[in-house]
Amino acid sequence: MSFESNEYFDGNVKSIAFQSATLPGTLGVMDIGEYTFDTNAYEFMTVVNGALTVKLPGATDWKTFNAGETFEVEANVSFDVKVKVQTAYLCLYK
Amino acid sequence: MSFESNEYFDGNVKSIAFQSATLPGTLGVMDIGEYTFDTNAYEFMTVVNGALTVKLPGATDWKTFNAGETFEVEANVSFDVKVKVQTAYLCLYK
Repeated sequence: MSFESNEYFDGNVKSIAFQSATLPGTLGVMDIGEYTFDTNAYEFMTVVNGALTVKLPGATDWKTFNAGETFEVEANVSFDVKVKVQTAYLCLYK
Repeated sequence: MSFESNEYFDGNVKSIAFQSATLPGTLGVMDIGEYTFDTNAYEFMTVVNGALTVKLPGATDWKTFNAGETFEVEANVSFDVKVKVQTAYLCLYK
């Protein structure tokens, strides 16, 4: 068996797909930078190490999520992320 | 930039290397199975999602670590791991 990995934004974001005990997920790392992500499913994004500063859909302000914190994003929307230190995250899809 | 990823045990363990705010680290996924890891540095292993049942160096019993729990391993030793569900982990090296 081999886990599938994916790269985005010219390799600045890299993730490995896996099947958790409950939901499909990806485990990934983001380099320093700013990104806009599009969702295909409802997402539970947890910061594992580092921090993500996020502008959620419909929001006007940015909110920073640190290690251990989770934010949720609806399916079929976009959200913006600013990364100031290489950050590890876990995303579970519902 | 592109993050370096590595595979072990015929792809049953896959990780991405990154530089956290404090220490170098890897973020990885283990498939169901049993593995013996050799350490080159002092390791802080944190279970991100799933569980790892571990026999630490010199130990006779196995201990299960769940999501959010961390175990530490000296450099230049081996430790055994049993994985019963695909498990995501973070390893920081000192």
